[in-house]
Parts: sequence; C-alpha cells; structure tokens
Amino acid sequence: MLVLLKPGTPEPAANDVMTRLRMAGLAVHRTDHAGQARIAAVGDTGSVDWADVATWPGVESTSRLPRPFKLASRAFRPHDTVVQVGRCAIGGPQLAIMAGPCSVEGEEQAFTIAAAVAKAGATVMRGGAYKPRTSPYAFQGLGEEGLKLLRRAADAHGLAVISEVMDTQLVALVARYADILQIGARNMQNYSLLHEVGHTGRPVMIKRGLSSTIEEWLLSAEHVMAQGNQQVLLCERGIRTFETYTRNTLDLNAVPVVKELSHLPVIVDPSHGTGIRDKVAPMARAAIAAGADGLIVEVHHDPDHALSDGPQSLYPEQFAELVGQIRTIADVLGRTV
Amino acid sequence: MLVLLKPGTPEPAANDVMTRLRMAGLAVHRTDHAGQARIAAVGDTGSVDWADVATWPGVESTSRLPRPFKLASRAFRPHDTVVQVGRCAIGGPQLAIMAGPCSVEGEEQAFTIAAAVAKAGATVMRGGAYKPRTSPYAFQGLGEEGLKLLRRAADAHGLAVISEVMDTQLVALVARYADILQIGARNMQNYSLLHEVGHTGRPVMIKRGLSSTIEEWLLSAEHVMAQGNQQVLLCERGIRTFETYTRNTLDLNAVPVVKELSHLPVIVDPSHGTGIRDKVAPMARAAIAAGADGLIVEVHHDPDHALSDGPQSLYPEQFAELVGQIRTIADVLGRTV
Amino acid sequence: MLVLLKPGTPEPAANDVMTRLRMAGLAVHRTDHAGQARIAAVGDTGSVDWADVATWPGVESTSRLPRPFKLASRAFRPHDTVVQVGRCAIGGPQLAIMAGPCSVEGEEQAFTIAAAVAKAGATVMRGGAYKPRTSPYAFQGLGEEGLKLLRRAADAHGLAVISEVMDTQLVALVARYADILQIGARNMQNYSLLHEVGHTGRPVMIKRGLSSTIEEWLLSAEHVMAQGNQQVLLCERGIRTFETYTRNTLDLNAVPVVKELSHLPVIVDPSHGTGIRDKVAPMARAAIAAGADGLIVEVHHDPDHALSDGPQSLYPEQFAELVGQIRTIADVLGRTV
Amino acid sequence: MLVLLKPGTPEPAANDVMTRLRMAGLAVHRTDHAGQARIAAVGDTGSVDWADVATWPGVESTSRLPRPFKLASRAFRPHDTVVQVGRCAIGGPQLAIMAGPCSVEGEEQAFTIAAAVAKAGATVMRGGAYKPRTSPYAFQGLGEEGLKLLRRAADAHGLAVISEVMDTQLVALVARYADILQIGARNMQNYSLLHEVGHTGRPVMIKRGLSSTIEEWLLSAEHVMAQGNQQVLLCERGIRTFETYTRNTLDLNAVPVVKELSHLPVIVDPSHGTGIRDKVAPMARAAIAAGADGLIVEVHHDPDHALSDGPQSLYPEQFAELVGQIRTIADVLGRTV
Repeated sequence: MLVLLKPGTPEPAANDVMTRLRMAGLAVHRTDHAGQARIAAVGDTGSVDWADVATWPGVESTSRLPRPFKLASRAFRPHDTVVQVGRCAIGGPQLAIMAGPCSVEGEEQAFTIAAAVAKAGATVMRGGAYKPRTSPYAFQGLGEEGLKLLRRAADAHGLAVISEVMDTQLVALVARYADILQIGARNMQNYSLLHEVGHTGRPVMIKRGLSSTIEEWLLSAEHVMAQGNQQVLLCERGIRTFETYTRNTLDLNAVPVVKELSHLPVIVDPSHGTGIRDKVAPMARAAIAAGADGLIVEVHHDPDHALSDGPQSLYPEQFAELVGQIRTIADVLGRTV
Repeated sequence: MLVLLKPGTPEPAANDVMTRLRMAGLAVHRTDHAGQARIAAVGDTGSVDWADVATWPGVESTSRLPRPFKLASRAFRPHDTVVQVGRCAIGGPQLAIMAGPCSVEGEEQAFTIAAAVAKAGATVMRGGAYKPRTSPYAFQGLGEEGLKLLRRAADAHGLAVISEVMDTQLVALVARYADILQIGARNMQNYSLLHEVGHTGRPVMIKRGLSSTIEEWLLSAEHVMAQGNQQVLLCERGIRTFETYTRNTLDLNAVPVVKELSHLPVIVDPSHGTGIRDKVAPMARAAIAAGADGLIVEVHHDPDHALSDGPQSLYPEQFAELVGQIRTIADVLGRTV
Repeated sequence: MLVLLKPGTPEPAANDVMTRLRMAGLAVHRTDHAGQARIAAVGDTGSVDWADVATWPGVESTSRLPRPFKLASRAFRPHDTVVQVGRCAIGGPQLAIMAGPCSVEGEEQAFTIAAAVAKAGATVMRGGAYKPRTSPYAFQGLGEEGLKLLRRAADAHGLAVISEVMDTQLVALVARYADILQIGARNMQNYSLLHEVGHTGRPVMIKRGLSSTIEEWLLSAEHVMAQGNQQVLLCERGIRTFETYTRNTLDLNAVPVVKELSHLPVIVDPSHGTGIRDKVAPMARAAIAAGADGLIVEVHHDPDHALSDGPQSLYPEQFAELVGQIRTIADVLGRTV
Repeated sequence: MLVLLKPGTPEPAANDVMTRLRMAGLAVHRTDHAGQARIAAVGDTGSVDWADVATWPGVESTSRLPRPFKLASRAFRPHDTVVQVGRCAIGGPQLAIMAGPCSVEGEEQAFTIAAAVAKAGATVMRGGAYKPRTSPYAFQGLGEEGLKLLRRAADAHGLAVISEVMDTQLVALVARYADILQIGARNMQNYSLLHEVGHTGRPVMIKRGLSSTIEEWLLSAEHVMAQGNQQVLLCERGIRTFETYTRNTLDLNAVPVVKELSHLPVIVDPSHGTGIRDKVAPMARAAIAAGADGLIVEVHHDPDHALSDGPQSLYPEQFAELVGQIRTIADVLGRTV
C-alpha cells in the first residue's frame, strides 16, 4: 500500500504513522517527493483496515500500489533514483559509461585497458574475476587475484569498479574490491544471492535474465530493495529469442518501458546484446537514443587472445570513437557524457 | 555463383558471358560496381564447369555467393540500393519518413492526416485499404474505395503512397493506386504473393514475419528479386518473443545486421514494434541511431476513434516533434530528413 | 452471441428466430446438441437488444460466446466435430493416420509409398505438389502433374488425399484432386486463402503457424468457418522457440488445450515437429497419449534421395512398427486405429 | 578425450593409464561397458600427444568426445545410468513416480498427501521447504521445519524424499533430510550451487532452465559430474515460449533427444509444464509414451487453499487414476510402474 502524508506533516507525526504500520506487521519504506512523504507498506496488507489508516493524523490518502513490485515502482517514488559511485552519479543527467574486459586476465591487460577506457571517457571499469561459464572446462576467472588487479588498475585511472558476484559466500569478498556488485543474467532469479547483496551497502546492478520478463526483472530488484538496499541499477543485455544470427536479441523496448514503470537507472550492454564487434557501436548509439542512463561495454586491446568474449569486444580506438558519437546523441536528449 | 568481369571488358564480351551462362540454364543478373561488371548466375549451378568459365574472355574470376540469398546479398552488389519513389530516394542519404493511419477510414480522415504528416516532413503516406485481421469479425478495410482516398489525399500533399496487398488477385489493383506495395508480416512467406509482386514494376516493402529469422527475411526478398524486380525495401516491425508488456519486441539488432548482409534499404516500424504510443518516439530515435534508412509510423488525429491500432498511433503534434528529434540524430550519422 | 432455443421448439419458430437475427444484420449459424438448437449470431452484435431477443418465442436464453472464436468454440458446439473423408471419420473414435512423402516426385515413388502406407494402416495419403520453399532456387513441386499422380496412387490403394494449397488462384485446381485442402503453417494467417477454401465444400486442415498462439490458430479456423465451411481440422506441427537441436518444438500441450476450447479434430505432425527421423515415433506415440485425433507422418522409401525433408521421413517399416505401437496406446484411451 | 582400453586389460595396466593421464594435468573418469574400460580425460587436452597415448600398453584407441559435455554423454558411457534411491532404481525398467505438494505447509498436509501418493504408487515424495518466489512478499517456505515434516511424512509411508536447495550455504542442511537434491529451473546455471551439490554423495535432479537449450542443460549436469557426483537426474519442466495459454511449453521433444545424447535418466514435470490441472494427466501420459524415465507431479488434497501452485495440483484421486493409465502405457514400452 502507498500512504501519502499531508505536505508539512511534522516528523513526529510521520514517525508515528510508520511505527503504527510496523506494529501491524508490515515492512515500511519512505521516500520524499515534492515536499511530501510517501510511505510504502509491504507484507500482509490484508490484515490492516486501510479506511482507518486514512484517518490517522497526518495521512492524506492511502492507495494500492498497482504492480507486484512496490519499492521499485515509480508509483512509490516518482523521481529518478541517482546512484552515486565514484565520480559518477548514475541516473542523473550524465550518462554512465562502464567499460573494460570481459575477464581480468593479468596485470598488464588490466592496466592497459583501464588507461584506454579512462582516456576515452569511461568512469567505471568492468571486469570479471568470477566467471559463470556454461562449460565446467572453460576458464573460470582469476578469483580474488583478479579483483585485486581490477581495483588497482581502476584506482590508477580514477575509475570506479563493477564486478560480478556469483554466490552468497563471495558477496563480502567481492564487496571489498568492487564499488558495484553485478548480478549476472543467469543469477537474476537466484533469490538467496539477491537477498545477500541486499544486506550490503553496495550498489547492485541486476542484469536481465535471458528469458525474464520486464516484470520479473523489476521483481528481482524488489528482492534486493526489500532488504533495505535501494541502490539498484538495471541492465538490459539481450534476451533469448529464435534469432540466432546475433548472440542475443537486445530488447531496447525495455528501456522506455522500465523508465516509465520504475525510478531505477537503466544501463544497456550492447556487447552481450549483439555478440558481434561491429554491431556494438550502432546498438550503443541506439540505446542512448532510446533513453538509457548508461552503457556497459566490453573493451580489449587484444581481443583475438582474450580468454572470453573476444569476438564482441571493441578495440580501444573503436570505443573512443563510440564515446564521441554518444556525446552528440546525448546532447539531443539533454544529457552529457 | 558470382562472375566478376575484368574492368573495361567491352559490352559485347560481357553480353557473351551472360548469354553463355543463360544457355547453361542459369538465371543471370548483373550489377556494376566501381567500374566492374558483376554477374550473379543462379539456378542449377552444379551442372557448369566453373574452372572453365574462369577462362572465358573478359572473366576475371568466379566465386561462390556464400549465402542462400544471392541477389539480395552485398557480396553480389556491394553498393547500397536506392529506390526512387516520388520525391524520396530511399536508401540514399535522406531518410525516408513514411506516416499515416493504420487504416483509411474516410475522406476527412485521410486528408487531415495527409496534411499533417506532409507538413511535419513525411514524404510517403501509409494507409491500409485491405487489412489482415486476426478475427473474421473485425473491420477488414475499405478496399478499392480506401485506395482511391489514399491516392487523392497523398496527391493533394505531394506524398507518395504505400499500401498493403494481401492476395495475388489484388496485386494489379493495388499497384494502380500505390507507389510501394507492402507485404505484411503475416504474408512474408506467402511465396505466390511474393512472385506476383516480383512481376510488377512497383517497389515492394517486405515486413519481417513475427518469427522469421533475418535469413528467411532476406530469402523472401530474394523471391521477389528472382522474378526481376530489384526494388525491394525491408521493414523491421518487431518479432514475437516471450515478453508481453510490449506488443512485439523490436529487433533493432537486425538493422546493422541487414545493412552488412544486404544492399537493400531497411525501414523500421516503431508503431507495431512497440504497440504503445509513448514508446514509439524513443524507439524511432533508436532505429535511426542504429542506422535505419527510414521509418514508417502510424499517425492519427483522433486515435481514440481509430478503427484499428489507435493505441499505438501518434498524434500529429507528437509526430512533428519526433521528426525534429530525428533530424538531429540523422545529422550525427551524416544523413538528412 | 449464443442463442439457445427451448428443447422441442418447432422448426418454423426456430427459422423465425434465425431470420430475425439475419435481418438485424448478423450472420447466423446453427448446431443441434442434446436435442436443443444452438444458434451463434456473429457480426455487429452491439446493435441488437439481447434482452428483447431473450423474449422471442422459442428462445430459452442468450449469452455471450466468451472467446473471440465463436463457431470454432466448444461453447457453441459442445460435441466433437467429425469430418468424414473416404473411409475415415476424423474426430471420431478411430484415429486418423495420414502418411506419405513430403513432395510427390514421380509415379514410381508415389505408388510405392501409397502401397506401403496403406498396408501399414494409413487411410489418408499426404503429398505436396505445390511446395512453399524458403529459397526461390529449391524444388517447388510438380504442380498439377503431382496432384494427378497423388490421386492415382491413393485411389489404387483406397486412400483419401490431402495436399497443400498455397494460393487463392489454385484452390479450385487442388480441390479437383484432393479430399482435404491443407493450409501450410506459413499461410495460417493468409486470410484471403482461408476465405477461398471456406467457400469450397472440401474439408480443410490448418497447420499452426510457427509463432501462432492457440487463440490465433483457432481464429484462422474461424475465418474458414465464417464462410460456411465447418469441416476444419487443426494440425499441430511444432512452434519456433530458442531450441535449435530439433527443427521445431512440438507443442503437445496444445492438444488437450484445443480439445477443451474447440470441437474441431486435432492432428499432430511429428515429422515437422521434430525434424529428426528417430524422434518421430516417440513423439507420435506421445501425441496419441496426449489425446490427438490423428497423425500426419512423412514416409519415404528412399529418404536419402528425397527432394525435400528426407532426414525426417520414416522408412515404411518404421512407419508400420509405429502404427502397431499407436494401436496399443489408442486402446488405453478407448480409441482404435 | 575418450580412451578405450583393450578388453581384458589387467587392472594395474588400466591404473597406469589413468595415472599417466592425471600426471598430464587431466581429470580422469572411468566407466566400464561391455567388458571394456572407457576413460574420459577432461581438461587441457591440447597439451597431450594423443598419438603417443594410443601406443601405451592396454590402450586400444583414443578419440575426441564430440560434444561439449563429456561425462554426461552417451559416447563416454553407452549404458543407462541407474540412480538408486530408496526402493526405486531411477533409470531402470521401473518408472520413477515422484509426487507431493508444491510446498510443505504443515504436519497434517504432509502426512495426508504422503499417504495418498504412496497408496497410488509413488515411490518418492516431493515437497518444497525453501521456495524460489518471484515476489519477495510471497510465502518463502517453512525452511528446516518443512524438511523435517517432509522426512517424517515420507518415512511413515516408505517414500524417498526430493526437495529443492537454493543456495550453497543450505546444501548440507537439505542433504540431511532429502534423498535427492533438486536444483530448480531458475538455478540451473547457478554454477556455485552445482559445484556444491557435486561435492555431496546425494543424487541431484536438475530442472531445465526456462530458456535453456538441451546442450546447456547437459552442461549443467556436467558441472555436477565433474566434481565427482555421477548420480544426476534431468527434469524437463517446460520452457518459455510466446504461448501464454499454458504456464510453460512442455518440450517433450527433449525426452528422446536427451535419451540419445546422454545416459542420464529423464524425469518430466507435467505440473509446471502445463500449469493447468486438467492438462497434467494427458501430458504425463504423453511423457511416458515419449520415453521418459519417470514423472514428478504436484498433488494436493485441498488445492484451493494451497500456499503455492494450487491450480496445477492434482487431487489424490486424479493422481491415482493417472498412475493407472501410466501403468498400461508403460507396458507398451516394456516398462513397469
């Protein structure tokens, strides 16, 4: 349920409302918008007499939050969430440009790529240390050693760090090195993992599952937010369809849809969304034109020898050229890079 | 097979090569690129000794056309096809903007919308007179009366006309009124119809089937082209996936993929591609940013009373605003509206 | 709308109701079930005062037909439709076994296969004379010559004939030779063609489109039935999904679903539904166990040299063994072969 | 690589081969089939000189295992894997019938259902104690309390227990109570979890992911088997397609495909595969007719009040009737219930 307080309700009265809702067994979340406190009460809402709540001091109105996701919905929080990470305020006017290798492979690789993407305009460095691989016999990532390299390379160039965490037992470890915890597409409905990252103070980026609807994706965000962590980014990375020419089908429709349904920032991954190097730049441009809040792009200086995802990685020069194109399109939409 | 002639081969020698290939039972198509004649020979190519062909006077080399579509492939024709329709050269630097109602409903409707879209910058008017409807009990279109209205409304504002043809027996009739014959998504693999429009001199726009791969789509173009009609446009209008929030999933990946595989122009239909009015403009912008050669957009001055597709039709003012945004993005890509 | 007449209403009164509904501009269809006349009135039902209709002499009640398909729905016609073709009453207790080559290739081929499938227990012979082919350069069928061969081969062994018709202009021709007109999956939403076969007196089998929902499929049946032809069979032949190991994904869920929603017989095509010879028999057994009314199976005595679909064609001995297995499973369900 | 030893190779020689392969850095797995030892060597096989291996004492031949899954492939292990659980040898001639509620809800519920399914012929009881729920606000299961109830109810009726484990940290706990550890569809590519259950001695049943190909599914089995746990069952439970009438599309094609590619038993879940109570029995029959090794079915004595999945749960009487039908179909295939 959504409980709107009257503008100017004194804080003690507001707290009173929240306490009474909590005493009714509900979890209570508050946001303030346009000078008005908005309270989402979630849980077994059927046990509460909402007509009565509407008469409580300070309460202006009560209404059902119309969708299964509550905290993630724009109905609860009308204004855009902005997640502050390093120099970058993701979800604000400046687009978030995240770039780096698929996997961290070694010191020279990490530092070379960090230098290149920082120079081109990225503010966040991506890189996998724990890799979900379809085959048990493929390279599984460097683990903590990879995280250390990633952190050092990023720090050397003033970049924030995003890296994937695959298991509840590794959340604390990854959170020591990464500024943003990435939930991979295969784990989008690994609810134990979503709960665990929901208990950290770290921003979380949730990649859309290969066959997840937009509603399921927002409900995965809700799983994190219901634990108290409101700093969630959503990442469209392509869905699985019958088309096999591209690795996935990048669903850019999802960008304006999510921007309407939710206040959370939307990032697009054109690398996994296409799987083909020379299709990455057109689709990155398209993503920004559709209204995305940022990009996450695989960049490698030597993709032929990359241990994973070489065929979809941009060369540093291609990435720099892409950022230039993005800058102009961003301008059309009143945004910056 | 692709037979390249030596640059400067005299016409009589070139004709000789073509005649000899035809005598071997093959269909022969020629294009000229960078001062060189390129001959596609299709049919039962296994019965010809290609090593021998390579020694014929004027022949530089022979090679297999690597994909199942031959005439539609960029390997056969490296330079972009430009289809001239009215004031618009589709596939050239100027983007093609096609707009109009889903169905032609009457004189006032047709003229009102024609005036609005022409003023906003469209050069082609769309409008259905024969409508493929899932239910036999829904409005099936005004038929020839609709075509007449469409033609008159378009002529009054200097617009070309595109309209759908659903049946072999109606091709001649629709071709009397329309400048471009549209093959709807449901008929993309209606090969009798593709052959029939291939025998006209009219440009043909083939909408991608709901579950058609890019290769199947290009093969449908090939069906038209193999009859001798090379003026084919391709239209991405969304594919069917598991996602139900949007009417279809607009596959913009297909835009750069088709531009690589084929020389044919690619148009995007963000109206059917989303099915939701306020998602049309973001996806139209994205389509152009991804490299599309044009747009086809549903516009209606009174969508609440439209006989079909009201919820996805733009208001004329929204369409005009969209064309303005497109203009700026086109500029980034070195194109114009 | 569904208008139920009182049991025992005299025919003149029943005719009166139908005439008055027709005069209101509606199309009227009647079925009799359990001694009671049931009238479906379709068209612009909003212009009729149904409370008034309910008071007409002989009328017991009026109600909305709840789904978009009316004549195809079990709500209109509660008892199973049985389509009589040659020796076979399709939709009755006896399962319909249709078998034959993908394409008719010549006299010897047609007669050899006809003999084999007749001996094994088939009652209908399948065989394509006009083939919808993805590539314009592939074998397109023998045309009328193929139909003649098919008819003669079938007649020689007491079999009925089913063959595909791809175009409105060929309906009369195909109907001269075939007992059942097949609408292929690619033409499931070719409404001109559906209307044309709806005007013949021939039974029609509609294959489900690759990406058609069950509702759309039943609406295609409705397009035929609304023209007056009630003899419609539905054929599940696999849908397109992300899985590429099999040619299509045979959706056997559709069998019990259609049997609930509609009174029309459901045939299953395990040849196209799998695309792999040694998967045809298991899925044919499964189809019957799920409640299908029959099978259509590709059989070829020399599949390595078949001009189409060799890899999914059964050898005659495999087909004979399959019919034996089907016999036993049919028995479990109270049916016969 | 697959290394075949000569029939009759003495054990010391066989051990020698395995030791030398291990010293080359490979993981080594052995199976014996038809009197012959078959050794799968997996890992960085490129560093070994296989022509040399072929000359080692006792080695008959070496060959590539042709698919990315090795231990799960029939090429490595030609004979069916049989997993012994309680009274049931899953994968042998007797079909495995697993049944029970979606969620364990309380003592009375668990015991009532256990009694009913045992009486009808089930040998394994299913029941969820930890539930993956799309919404964070839905019932998440009783946890360990649920497992205790499930174990007691199953023991009281001589049933084995299968229950889902969702997180690496809960594997040891669930393994204390359950005979078979179930990996849910959403966790099919949660590789940390697959590795953890691979380190237990418990049989594991892997449900196919909603959009997982058959190859990816077998690779998930490989992830478990590569840790040393060969007791893996595969469960087809429906995939996600465009069709929304049913909850999922049960892909029975997968049954004969997996039986060809792999030696692992295949179980089918018609409850999730359809999501509709009266479609469960037809699809259960179809699954057995297609060659499945068993079924897992949701049964509830009071589905209207079930805390999850009521609409797809069979009543006990329906389940008993279904087992009777299965018995007859099994007989056709030379199997028993």
